Amino acid sequence: MKKLINSAESVLADALRGVAAAHPELTVDHENRVVISNAPREGRVALISGGGSGHEPLHSGFVGAGMLDAACAGEVFTSPTPDQMLAAAQAVDSGAGVLFIVKNYTGDVLNFEMAAELAADEGIASESVIVADDVAVKDSTWTAGRRGVGTTLLVEKIAGAAAAEGKSLAEVKAVAEHVASHGRSMGVALTSCTVPAVGHPSFDLPDDEMEMGVGIHGEPGRTRVPLAPAHDIAAELVEAITADLDFTGAPVIALLTGLGGTPLIELYVMYADIADALAAKGVTVARSLVGDYVTSLDMAGCSLTLLRADDELLRLWDAPVETSALRWGR
Amino acid sequence: MKKLINSAESVLADALRGVAAAHPELTVDHENRVVISNAPREGRVALISGGGSGHEPLHSGFVGAGMLDAACAGEVFTSPTPDQMLAAAQAVDSGAGVLFIVKNYTGDVLNFEMAAELAADEGIASESVIVADDVAVKDSTWTAGRRGVGTTLLVEKIAGAAAAEGKSLAEVKAVAEHVASHGRSMGVALTSCTVPAVGHPSFDLPDDEMEMGVGIHGEPGRTRVPLAPAHDIAAELVEAITADLDFTGAPVIALLTGLGGTPLIELYVMYADIADALAAKGVTVARSLVGDYVTSLDMAGCSLTLLRADDELLRLWDAPVETSALRWGR
Repeated sequence: MKKLINSAESVLADALRGVAAAHPELTVDHENRVVISNAPREGRVALISGGGSGHEPLHSGFVGAGMLDAACAGEVFTSPTPDQMLAAAQAVDSGAGVLFIVKNYTGDVLNFEMAAELAADEGIASESVIVADDVAVKDSTWTAGRRGVGTTLLVEKIAGAAAAEGKSLAEVKAVAEHVASHGRSMGVALTSCTVPAVGHPSFDLPDDEMEMGVGIHGEPGRTRVPLAPAHDIAAELVEAITADLDFTGAPVIALLTGLGGTPLIELYVMYADIADALAAKGVTVARSLVGDYVTSLDMAGCSLTLLRADDELLRLWDAPVETSALRWGR
Repeated sequence: MKKLINSAESVLADALRGVAAAHPELTVDHENRVVISNAPREGRVALISGGGSGHEPLHSGFVGAGMLDAACAGEVFTSPTPDQMLAAAQAVDSGAGVLFIVKNYTGDVLNFEMAAELAADEGIASESVIVADDVAVKDSTWTAGRRGVGTTLLVEKIAGAAAAEGKSLAEVKAVAEHVASHGRSMGVALTSCTVPAVGHPSFDLPDDEMEMGVGIHGEPGRTRVPLAPAHDIAAELVEAITADLDFTGAPVIALLTGLGGTPLIELYVMYADIADALAAKGVTVARSLVGDYVTSLDMAGCSLTLLRADDELLRLWDAPVETSALRWGR
């Protein structure tokens, strides 16, 4: 295992020290492993997400004005605890309540449920939205139902804009659920990732094969097939996603994320063929984002997310955002 | 070789198609392989950079308002041609002249020199700044003098802000040279990279060793040593850079870039220890940037750049910028 770390045990604590050092606009609660925005939030709904680490910049990179108020960092590929989530809720609730944005993994779902109960005991109103957008598999040994991947970023951005406008908890939740239900994703891995505490690759993948539909923790996908040209991979990702939901007749937001070990030049190669494949299917991409946004440690590969949007969602997408990983001021 | 590509020959053309598809705010001249900003530039100095591909987002990711007006993309790790640079100059000169920002590699330097002559023949005034900030080696088989790395981004951003303010070509050049002469960098590689047209790693690096002072094309560094904890690597990078220039008594801009194959969580681990090492040396970091900005294809590793700034450079650094890879509106 070749990694820029001090020890497998200290990866998360060290990374959070780095986040704190690099981002004075954030407060890091090192004890609870919660990253908190310093942006004001008086009177408006606060957004909280979190999950296992190893998917950076998700979630701490999306903490800031117009997106998340706090992110709870679990150990690598391990759910954060209800106590962390409660600490986050206590740190950011201004009385308007909090929305928990939860990727559909059993531990995350259970712990956020428990956190909601703990928060209620403390007088903090909360709602939750579960993101389950990965079309690759419906159930796996890692999840019940579909896994949550790239749509999570879209929920965080769009619900964050709704919260910034002062919408109520019920309204922000409704926006978040609308996004969650209209996003679909699928990924492909060229290599495994290596969890620091494990020290060897999570799975074996021969030099001439790839895993179509891989999960963000290296969970098995749909098929293991010979390595193919970008054009063919793009076609298969687009086919799988558009077979699951109709993306024609509406503006679409496209996210192509690298999985951590794939450089940007390859992502652009992939996006060229994805754009062509979408156009051939009559899908109109209104906004796009290409880069490392939802990663899987050092895994080589990418994941495509499409969101069936409308004018209102595009307006919320375009609203100003000021985080370390996503920032614009349109 | 496992890459998301169609063929080794088509990587650059395909990636530029992807850039065009993802970024409607840019114009891609596919014939000349030049990426051009659609932002207005009437009456002000235009900034042009370029170099071999494989370092994305450098340079095309820095094309846009407040930074570069155009970027010339060579084949992977290969200088762009004078004709490409002339095409870029013709596309973006509005009469105020162009500044070429050149990394110190022999081919780049020679070709930009020739481009300046060709531009002069066309009545386009130009100046050049050469970035040679890599403290690892003074000469190598790849370069005469020091190699140009991360300071290039800082030159592009800060000189871009100066140009946006309407400064003259001589003034913008002076700012660029000031930045170039006050920036220092050094990198470390945990793995080699693989050039698509070559198909195998550029160099061999055993599982338990790293290359301190590696070049961005995989050029040999200072020493090949056993893999060390992040803390020790941070100390060595900081020591090498601060031994070369005094960074105390001034605000410093710190850039920690991944080399393409290293995930963000590891960069934050490194940055935590770099911040500590700098503080211990009395260096005050005023601004920082952590992420993949100047990469080397799929190489695992990172490179640290420090710029000895002042209030004026910080003001220019903080000025609004609107590119795909660097964007803020302070």
